[in-house]
Amino acid sequence: MSKRILTVPRTGDKVSSAGRLQPAESGRTSLQAPSAARSSEKGTCVKIHVTVWGENRHEQAQPRVAEIYPDGMHNAIRRGIEGWLGEQATVATATLDDPEHGLTEEVLAGTDVLTWWGHAAHGEVSDEVVDRVHRHVLSGMGLVVLHSGHWSKIFTKLMGTTCTLRWRSANDRELVWTVNPAHPIARGIPHPIEIPAQEMYGEQFDIPTPDELIFISSFTGGEVFRSGCTFRRGNGKIFYFSPGDQDYPVYHHPDVLHVIANGVEWAAGDRSRRELPTLLRYEMGDFFNGHGYQGAMHNKESAE
Amino acid sequence: MSKRILTVPRTGDKVSSAGRLQPAESGRTSLQAPSAARSSEKGTCVKIHVTVWGENRHEQAQPRVAEIYPDGMHNAIRRGIEGWLGEQATVATATLDDPEHGLTEEVLAGTDVLTWWGHAAHGEVSDEVVDRVHRHVLSGMGLVVLHSGHWSKIFTKLMGTTCTLRWRSANDRELVWTVNPAHPIARGIPHPIEIPAQEMYGEQFDIPTPDELIFISSFTGGEVFRSGCTFRRGNGKIFYFSPGDQDYPVYHHPDVLHVIANGVEWAAGDRSRRELPTLLRYEMGDFFNGHGYQGAMHNKESAE
Amino acid sequence: MSKRILTVPRTGDKVSSAGRLQPAESGRTSLQAPSAARSSEKGTCVKIHVTVWGENRHEQAQPRVAEIYPDGMHNAIRRGIEGWLGEQATVATATLDDPEHGLTEEVLAGTDVLTWWGHAAHGEVSDEVVDRVHRHVLSGMGLVVLHSGHWSKIFTKLMGTTCTLRWRSANDRELVWTVNPAHPIARGIPHPIEIPAQEMYGEQFDIPTPDELIFISSFTGGEVFRSGCTFRRGNGKIFYFSPGDQDYPVYHHPDVLHVIANGVEWAAGDRSRRELPTLLRYEMGDFFNGHGYQGAMHNKESAE
Amino acid sequence: MSKRILTVPRTGDKVSSAGRLQPAESGRTSLQAPSAARSSEKGTCVKIHVTVWGENRHEQAQPRVAEIYPDGMHNAIRRGIEGWLGEQATVATATLDDPEHGLTEEVLAGTDVLTWWGHAAHGEVSDEVVDRVHRHVLSGMGLVVLHSGHWSKIFTKLMGTTCTLRWRSANDRELVWTVNPAHPIARGIPHPIEIPAQEMYGEQFDIPTPDELIFISSFTGGEVFRSGCTFRRGNGKIFYFSPGDQDYPVYHHPDVLHVIANGVEWAAGDRSRRELPTLLRYEMGDFFNGHGYQGAMHNKESAE
Repeated sequence: MSKRILTVPRTGDKVSSAGRLQPAESGRTSLQAPSAARSSEKGTCVKIHVTVWGENRHEQAQPRVAEIYPDGMHNAIRRGIEGWLGEQATVATATLDDPEHGLTEEVLAGTDVLTWWGHAAHGEVSDEVVDRVHRHVLSGMGLVVLHSGHWSKIFTKLMGTTCTLRWRSANDRELVWTVNPAHPIARGIPHPIEIPAQEMYGEQFDIPTPDELIFISSFTGGEVFRSGCTFRRGNGKIFYFSPGDQDYPVYHHPDVLHVIANGVEWAAGDRSRRELPTLLRYEMGDFFNGHGYQGAMHNKESAE
Repeated sequence: MSKRILTVPRTGDKVSSAGRLQPAESGRTSLQAPSAARSSEKGTCVKIHVTVWGENRHEQAQPRVAEIYPDGMHNAIRRGIEGWLGEQATVATATLDDPEHGLTEEVLAGTDVLTWWGHAAHGEVSDEVVDRVHRHVLSGMGLVVLHSGHWSKIFTKLMGTTCTLRWRSANDRELVWTVNPAHPIARGIPHPIEIPAQEMYGEQFDIPTPDELIFISSFTGGEVFRSGCTFRRGNGKIFYFSPGDQDYPVYHHPDVLHVIANGVEWAAGDRSRRELPTLLRYEMGDFFNGHGYQGAMHNKESAE
Repeated sequence: MSKRILTVPRTGDKVSSAGRLQPAESGRTSLQAPSAARSSEKGTCVKIHVTVWGENRHEQAQPRVAEIYPDGMHNAIRRGIEGWLGEQATVATATLDDPEHGLTEEVLAGTDVLTWWGHAAHGEVSDEVVDRVHRHVLSGMGLVVLHSGHWSKIFTKLMGTTCTLRWRSANDRELVWTVNPAHPIARGIPHPIEIPAQEMYGEQFDIPTPDELIFISSFTGGEVFRSGCTFRRGNGKIFYFSPGDQDYPVYHHPDVLHVIANGVEWAAGDRSRRELPTLLRYEMGDFFNGHGYQGAMHNKESAE
Repeated sequence: MSKRILTVPRTGDKVSSAGRLQPAESGRTSLQAPSAARSSEKGTCVKIHVTVWGENRHEQAQPRVAEIYPDGMHNAIRRGIEGWLGEQATVATATLDDPEHGLTEEVLAGTDVLTWWGHAAHGEVSDEVVDRVHRHVLSGMGLVVLHSGHWSKIFTKLMGTTCTLRWRSANDRELVWTVNPAHPIARGIPHPIEIPAQEMYGEQFDIPTPDELIFISSFTGGEVFRSGCTFRRGNGKIFYFSPGDQDYPVYHHPDVLHVIANGVEWAAGDRSRRELPTLLRYEMGDFFNGHGYQGAMHNKESAE
């Protein structure tokens, strides 16, 4: 982890009136995030099992990207989550080129929250794996979709829309404003986050109306974007967060990583209760014992 | 149309304190609905072009259903919309067994609102037609999904979830309560609608949180269901309404037809502006002229 | 009305690919708005009765404001609504200095939609009038709150929050982006609206989460604002729209007036059904005849 | 606490397929709730400071009520929260007859979540205290409003509506169904909760559309009610939950208490950041240092 770039506030740092976590004067330390402090105060915690999925192609094909993310964006994201959640989380990574993209049934069954970054190779993700992830999300697994993941198969399948947007890559400054300050994902996040150089993502962002809108971004050119959105689908929780790019060092920005960590914490479901919603018949007065549906041509009592 | 069953209030009928349209004392007339009255007061109107799609299989396979709906549920629904919207609407029908299920590109391009009823043969609807309807909805066509259409390919594709529910067919009474009285779809609807015999659809209804929840139903057995919900997807508006069944004469119930007609009116978009959301690049300072996206590996200005 | 500034597109004008109504090449005409065209196509319409309420103090106290709005902002707003809605609307005005601020019981009972602009004299609006307006909104009257009306007694009473925001008056350019293109209030509105000079209103805007978010604005300084929001309260519909100011000629901007007119059309309720929600007792099985509540100490059957 | 009535599942109890926490076969123990188990697994936790406010009048005036709640409903609610949250919470009580109703500035400043039950004496709550509570909620204090608290001064002030409903007290069975199974407030709650005897609260419930709808209830008579709703106002979170009554032993029902405890956990904000939203001017380019607003007549730069 690059200590030069990522500087996460340590315990004892002060919060300014603007709501930003301010590093202490005497210097910065990495990876002693406030959440880690909270969790050590709590003692041993129930761990959140996180799987960070990265496409990991730009990093191999483009030297410019490899320079920014020497061991891949997925590892930058992993370190950010570990840094902010500390003992609360156990984080693994998986990439496109792993067998089954690293997302076997066993891996997903052991994952509380999956984060997803893809861009150049959405089309190479197998439909079978997408269906598996889809089933786990509807059954209760959390999903955090990042940046260009807006156009991934899994996100468009969950949203039902094109998930298109307006776009430009020309060194815009992005400001990320909080519009839902009571939301746990906004906890400790400065208002606004300043990202010096970034791709522009603008509206119309063709998504369903989010259940909760948490962040809105503006760009140098004047465009705006609903950059932090939650959606509940089936028994699972989804958080989409747009800041982050292969061409800019956005995944070294401590505030961006803080939001992702908050999103992971928010999205975590209860693995022991994971269950796909199923159509069942319930007899009058029996609320708890559904039984089998026998097909459309046999659904009236008098017809059976 | 069965005048015996369907009795739509005529002009001049009074509204009771309960919000129900009450027929005038002297008798009932069919198909002189208040909306028709409103539109004749307005003179010639811009017509809403409606296509009522029906699977039309139960009616052929099951004498019991044919008895309730001699010329098909789609025609009962068509007459209800015509009755309540009068001069405002032009209504055509299309069924599964028509070539391309009656939903060619030309038909959809000329349709402001499509209503969808399917049940026993969801699997027989061609994926190509489903994709076409999906594209038109995201481009701005209205869609009204009825009853067992909750499990249709087009609805589950738009929702991204399983759209399952709990269910029983045992002559429950259904009461349909309004929870959004300011909504145009609730205009003129009694609170509650009473449906003497009906299938039970109960929660968990695995849909995304609706943009607007308009009706909640209860059943004799005590189950509840979010029975009237709106969703915006892309540039199109969707209304789901659950009351209605092949085994019960629900599509002869005037209040149920009134809600469907209100839903059609609400969902109607502007055909002249139909356009699929598309990802385009916009240069700094140019808000109106998007141009082509060149692929994920060429998206940074400095890389081009 | 200043024809020099306000140029509303005439019938036959074309719509560009950006969704903006474009004036015809041969010149511009005032007040032949597309809606007027639509309504004349429809013939006689059910009129929407609109009351435009204006504080009308800046216009008297500040020559700079009087120069921009010689007969008051309320008249600029009135003409805008008339121009875009044409035969659909009848528009009256009322101001703070009128007896009862021009908002007697009779006036409100005859008003389908009230628009509200206030700023310097929120505190001079009598509580009795505010309570009256509040009652009418909850009973079904539409309300369109404009710009600095965010801090009016009526808006804060309906919202329950402080309705504060961040602010600056320094000639920012405002861009108004549509995030809900299927909404009737966005119909025909360019994406974005460009307002050359304007006050900055920024987030945190302390309002309840809107039922529908339609517009988001950005400003030269990079701030963002939820500038077009709907809320349903009781049986009434509320639209808040922030662009508009006494110091800038925003109420001469045709797109801004178009949004206000769309908002008026959307918010219009049905005066004949106006009714304040009331707590009533309903006996088992009787859904339509509520009767009197007798007080908290007498509410159990067995106690009566 | 009545062990006879309140039986909270102990650690090791199993979860049935219906999602209900099932007591172990060998018997029931009180107050070893799963949450308590979780928190002891975590070790010492950051405590949530809860103040349970109760009107405490029925218990004094009506022997029937005193019999059900010998030391007051507020103590039944307190024990339920303690039982389900265990080490996570510190719970105090306050009542109407305490000086300043027990809700001094100091008490509120030290409260993370306030729960509110009132009924017969809403009018006796001083406006000064209501304004104080309102300010704390908007500044970030959590609020859980219970049952007849729907008509309290604080709830109607926060909602902006009448908060009326339809009602009957006639031993209806209430079933509480979950419609948002991914929500933390629904965690561990059976679907449905069965309450054998209860007051009927029915729609129209005149509240703003909730931010999140979690529970819908049905009653023997067929009425339905949005019985579990969240609202964010200012920087604070509000949960309304309707089951609970003075005339029925609903506050001894373990599932009802479990929901209240979950609601308390969900609503808890961060006391160290409590701050009332305030209107401030921000200069161009300075996002963090707002300064004073000087009044409506002095708000344009060029005018100063």
